[in-house]
Amino acid sequence: MPTGKLQVIPLGGVGEFGMNSMALRYNDDIIVIDAGMMFPDTELLGVDVVTPDFGYLKEHREKVRALILTHAHEDHIGGTPYLLSQLNIPVYGTAFTLGMAERRLEEHRLLDQADLREVAPGDKVELGPFSVHFIHVTHSTISCVALAITTPLGVVMHTADFKIDQTPVDDLHFDLHAFAEYGKRGVLLLMSDSTNVERPGYSESERAVRPRLEQIFASATRKLIFSTFSSSIPRIQQVLDVAAKYDRKVALIGRSLLATTEIAHDLGLLRIPDNLLLRPQDVMETAPHRVCCLVSGTQGEPMSSLSRVAVDNHKNVSVKPGDTVVLSARVIPGNEKPIGRMLNHFARRGADLIYGGGTPPIHVSGHGHRDELNLILNLVRPKYFMPVHGEYLQLMRHARLAKHLEGQGLESTFIIENGESLVIDAHGARKGEKINTGRVCIDSGSLGDVVEDLIIRDRRHLAQDGFVIPVLAIDRATGQLQGSPEIISRGFVSLGDSGQLLGFAKQLVMKTLDESNAEERSDWGVIQEKIRVDLKRFLNKETQRRPMILPVILEV
Amino acid sequence: MPTGKLQVIPLGGVGEFGMNSMALRYNDDIIVIDAGMMFPDTELLGVDVVTPDFGYLKEHREKVRALILTHAHEDHIGGTPYLLSQLNIPVYGTAFTLGMAERRLEEHRLLDQADLREVAPGDKVELGPFSVHFIHVTHSTISCVALAITTPLGVVMHTADFKIDQTPVDDLHFDLHAFAEYGKRGVLLLMSDSTNVERPGYSESERAVRPRLEQIFASATRKLIFSTFSSSIPRIQQVLDVAAKYDRKVALIGRSLLATTEIAHDLGLLRIPDNLLLRPQDVMETAPHRVCCLVSGTQGEPMSSLSRVAVDNHKNVSVKPGDTVVLSARVIPGNEKPIGRMLNHFARRGADLIYGGGTPPIHVSGHGHRDELNLILNLVRPKYFMPVHGEYLQLMRHARLAKHLEGQGLESTFIIENGESLVIDAHGARKGEKINTGRVCIDSGSLGDVVEDLIIRDRRHLAQDGFVIPVLAIDRATGQLQGSPEIISRGFVSLGDSGQLLGFAKQLVMKTLDESNAEERSDWGVIQEKIRVDLKRFLNKETQRRPMILPVILEV
Repeated sequence: MPTGKLQVIPLGGVGEFGMNSMALRYNDDIIVIDAGMMFPDTELLGVDVVTPDFGYLKEHREKVRALILTHAHEDHIGGTPYLLSQLNIPVYGTAFTLGMAERRLEEHRLLDQADLREVAPGDKVELGPFSVHFIHVTHSTISCVALAITTPLGVVMHTADFKIDQTPVDDLHFDLHAFAEYGKRGVLLLMSDSTNVERPGYSESERAVRPRLEQIFASATRKLIFSTFSSSIPRIQQVLDVAAKYDRKVALIGRSLLATTEIAHDLGLLRIPDNLLLRPQDVMETAPHRVCCLVSGTQGEPMSSLSRVAVDNHKNVSVKPGDTVVLSARVIPGNEKPIGRMLNHFARRGADLIYGGGTPPIHVSGHGHRDELNLILNLVRPKYFMPVHGEYLQLMRHARLAKHLEGQGLESTFIIENGESLVIDAHGARKGEKINTGRVCIDSGSLGDVVEDLIIRDRRHLAQDGFVIPVLAIDRATGQLQGSPEIISRGFVSLGDSGQLLGFAKQLVMKTLDESNAEERSDWGVIQEKIRVDLKRFLNKETQRRPMILPVILEV
Repeated sequence: MPTGKLQVIPLGGVGEFGMNSMALRYNDDIIVIDAGMMFPDTELLGVDVVTPDFGYLKEHREKVRALILTHAHEDHIGGTPYLLSQLNIPVYGTAFTLGMAERRLEEHRLLDQADLREVAPGDKVELGPFSVHFIHVTHSTISCVALAITTPLGVVMHTADFKIDQTPVDDLHFDLHAFAEYGKRGVLLLMSDSTNVERPGYSESERAVRPRLEQIFASATRKLIFSTFSSSIPRIQQVLDVAAKYDRKVALIGRSLLATTEIAHDLGLLRIPDNLLLRPQDVMETAPHRVCCLVSGTQGEPMSSLSRVAVDNHKNVSVKPGDTVVLSARVIPGNEKPIGRMLNHFARRGADLIYGGGTPPIHVSGHGHRDELNLILNLVRPKYFMPVHGEYLQLMRHARLAKHLEGQGLESTFIIENGESLVIDAHGARKGEKINTGRVCIDSGSLGDVVEDLIIRDRRHLAQDGFVIPVLAIDRATGQLQGSPEIISRGFVSLGDSGQLLGFAKQLVMKTLDESNAEERSDWGVIQEKIRVDLKRFLNKETQRRPMILPVILEV
């Protein structure tokens, strides 16, 4: 048995959904699986993007061999520019995944220096002590891989995101054989996607959507506005195929949709029937029953094409009574309200709306349900199991699901969250040391614009009750107040109410100053604090609010 | 045919969910149906409560005869204190509804002067030209009424919130006979609840939850933590009954739960089996398999008892591994994240969790599904129909549902949103004039603390990028700058970055001042604006952010 130490260090995405990133370390070599991002909760005011804190990797920069991307979703590749700007390491992924990552790198002007290395399912790559085998899996986007990573201590399998689609649209099947073979030979550690552990049975195939699409295209009498996730190439393929069958032209509308379909098409992974496409500018001139607009923006993002169509603010598409709007996507938690608003706008314009449940389904999930997770557990029969890709709730349920394998080779299951680590060595597996991880909040999507927690705390304070800033000019020589104090306030009380209130506040500031003794007056810091405390008490009593109070003393 | 004019004026709750309030006017008499509130969207920063703008009622105060409350939910009674503080009119409602409203009035010290008039289902009350008949309906809370309002022009029926529960827990049935009788005699206008128009078939009875409760109580081996809406008396009744059957004591935990159960119990509307209750302080001393804690806070509200139990910060209840936590409630859209966080905390403590779907259900809706809406439409067969209680989407679907009644007496359906009105007179029904309505945003729940739109706009600006305030002292006599400018900033850039940036900004302010001519210097308003514009351009270029910039000039 080798004497080395294997460490599994989640940097993000375990105990939360989004920004998946995982470091795998064997002695002095590290590889990184995925570098995702997530969109912030609403309480992260003014923050546009959240990525994992890659500090651990920077700290050990000379050990980091490579970044491996499993598939093209933002929660797996979106943090790549942020990681590469700190640590320019080789990036491995399938052609489509790299194509999607390239787009992000280009936006941050990092593409030229990036070292992107294309792999195909079935390939093996040697990275120091790690031999990484890329295994094809099915999911809601294309060219997805799981990883079987052979280390001196044994094989680590990482499913990445998957469902087991028995009838994938591109006929490229989940490589169950590879899983079976590793399982037979013995797997040290399995990490598996926990997203849908709460859903019983098996997920429906992507092809389950097809009959619903046929119904919709067959019965729509006017324009069709169809929206799905831009990276859902299999769904888009089905829409294109059905549109061709029912003799409708398709207009692709939205920046992300155009980019994604172009990448897939250039790689031969999206078939666009001849003469199918319609230029967006020709939509309104074409007979409505011959048009399908494929539009990005399923989540009601205010600047997306679909949101703009909903409020009749899109240059090429306008919804008329009798048009049909289809939302072929899930609602990402937190987006219920913007999506609802968007749908109401469509309803006001007289559109027929198709979304949500129904049979056949208008959307299927890309993550396997409970019995698919069981199938993977049974095929792989690992010695150690670590559920990933879920909140604690899903990790816990997935851990329980594995219980029946105890006695069939499974020795232990570990729920490891961000900031914790799993250690495996000759003595077995155990929870390891705590690792410094966390999140980095980024403003405006630019690399350098990190928003510190303190700033977000200040913004939250300002968002709650605004600010009150008393400004005083003091004669440097005499220590006397010059002129009268000013008080500036925003976001606190209405202008109507504020006149009298701020008048009293002004008097209070002068009183505080008057009542200060010579010693206090010699230290403006003390005076500022006294003013702040007095004002805080007064304003809180008068208004029950707690604005940010920042006294300014100007020496003149 | 009388020559009068009937107006239906929604003040809130039509075209949105929440804060239901509806004015019914006949010539110079007005009655108000419900005065609800809603909880604000997250973008309404620092706002705690939203109520309809009751300006229309204030404007016509001498005409307003009464407020009629249909049932005890906050979106129907929560605005009562805000309305009564502006207009002290008689309030009609059932004993339980008034009891719940009293609690709110007491909090605002309005109870003493309030004129509350209790009615029972079956009662009729004459209010000027209106004769109001209270009709019992079933819903998720108790003592709910629909209204049949006889006017000189005909009968107006308002269903209020309802489901048609064929087996209500309290055996008090939906008064279908009253609906049938009015339908037979002829109804001028029907207003009906549209909430669940998108759900097919019939809703399940409240009793459908009972088998699931039995399962849970029969199989839980340790403490049960059970949470439902505090106003859901039938659900609470079932929990108490099942707890007694399975020999568990029940501790009632949470302010709103205690208040609500006390009101219902005092009125004889909640039966509490003898010796069932356990004092909260005795929970931890009792054998876990003999305890059920009924705890309020299903929506993950941060200060609720359930949230505090989840983070082990409640003085009487602590969750241990093997305890069972049951969420017997729906997720109100917008609350997905806080509820998810709470459930994850429970999972981390090793609790078994029961929530969401499943068969038998752990929660059923209080609003009727599509076929119940159809049943009401068919029983009432109104001349005019106006769907209420829904977003535009639901109103539209409900309007379509009524289409099959055209030719069976239904002349027209009207989708009237807040701010619009429906007019009926001898010439028939039509959309009437626009009415000034809107919402009032209230801070801290106190009556006077209205938050104006401008303040919320300012807070949103501050929340996004913080503020930058350059402060200058200028000699009143000479117009010369005294001392050097100060720049205060919060929520904008981190302290580390800000030093240099704000140093440059200071220089820019001085440069702007230097380059201003004598004419500009004579008008501080002009100087302030020049500084603001220059600074805005500079900061936006350097940081891509747009903080609020407020130059202050102090004359000394």
